[in-house]
Amino acid sequence: MVNNLTSPHEYPGKLFVVEGIDGSGKTTQLGLLAKWLIAEGHRVFVTEWNSSALVKAATKTGKRKNALTPMTFSLLHATDFADRLLYKIIPPLKAGMIVLADRYAYTAFARDATRGVDRQWVRELYSFAVRPDLALYFRVPIDVSLDRLMARRVKLKFYEAGMDLAGARTRPRASACFRARCWTSMIGWSTNSAWKRSTPPAASWNSSASSAT
Amino acid sequence: MVNNLTSPHEYPGKLFVVEGIDGSGKTTQLGLLAKWLIAEGHRVFVTEWNSSALVKAATKTGKRKNALTPMTFSLLHATDFADRLLYKIIPPLKAGMIVLADRYAYTAFARDATRGVDRQWVRELYSFAVRPDLALYFRVPIDVSLDRLMARRVKLKFYEAGMDLAGARTRPRASACFRARCWTSMIGWSTNSAWKRSTPPAASWNSSASSAT
Repeated sequence: MVNNLTSPHEYPGKLFVVEGIDGSGKTTQLGLLAKWLIAEGHRVFVTEWNSSALVKAATKTGKRKNALTPMTFSLLHATDFADRLLYKIIPPLKAGMIVLADRYAYTAFARDATRGVDRQWVRELYSFAVRPDLALYFRVPIDVSLDRLMARRVKLKFYEAGMDLAGARTRPRASACFRARCWTSMIGWSTNSAWKRSTPPAASWNSSASSAT
Repeated sequence: MVNNLTSPHEYPGKLFVVEGIDGSGKTTQLGLLAKWLIAEGHRVFVTEWNSSALVKAATKTGKRKNALTPMTFSLLHATDFADRLLYKIIPPLKAGMIVLADRYAYTAFARDATRGVDRQWVRELYSFAVRPDLALYFRVPIDVSLDRLMARRVKLKFYEAGMDLAGARTRPRASACFRARCWTSMIGWSTNSAWKRSTPPAASWNSSASSAT
């Protein structure tokens, strides 16, 4: 199968992606970018990770019962992604819009690999994904991201904190470990040709700055 | 990733698979085989296609709203399969039992390819599956299978009848077309080394016989 993720797409629209661990500032910056683009007269559509209604119930049930294996977790996210790609991402791209994606396939590459799923298998799994025109990785120290989340009194969820992986016992500690492993994994994926590390052009893009929450 | 489906497994149990279009007699024969094996003193576990509780709601909702794309349909089935593999198939194999599977990954290969999903992608998707010790394909003429289903007053379901594919307008006609295309696809997959076409050793295995319903 042709790997779409490594070949430029032919839609008239543009796909911009932000990646990074929670608390890295990517959602804040994406929101600012959306506002700016709209103010400049562009038509913009924002899509978030894991937001398709199709598998929401399955993911919720699986998480509640702690019955998700790394493989089923990975496949559920891929189903969610495939659903969003066809109904939410490709149509605006065809219509010449700018699609801003808060997390993309690279999140799956990092998280699934961290959970022990074969890297190459995950890569093949997402080979149907549209290649972003630009993907920015928000690189931030683990402790900074964790401090931000704690300051916002965000409740660290079981799976998001990586509590399903053996090791640390408390959520903050598990979360820090999981983030560190995802972070390392993402850096590994950053060699991808579609992937550019974010080089902050201004203070507002400095993902370590306290404003970027 | 090592393709498990092409390498013999190392569990003490045995995995026997039956494949074929609905009405080919495979479920009847598998039931008879299960009874015989149990009578012979073997410990047997029977598993059916698409029977995991994990994605049941998602599949049901997607089907009801006719919102499933070939890709999401494929991924949901793969999620179901991955869940069953880990919780229902591998444990009895580890325990030295005989697992009888009514449909296996080959059903996905045939159906997904018929719906236009890339063959190689589906094959990679299921590369985590355990290779069966024996896979039997029940080859039966399309009209015979359809006559059997109609005689049993089986209501042909939308997706099972392939109504999501453009073409035939009535369910029996759509079903016949879909079966024919799956049938052809399955024959294509039958070159797989783990795959043996069923050569009926006795009348009860003759999938065209009227008793095989």
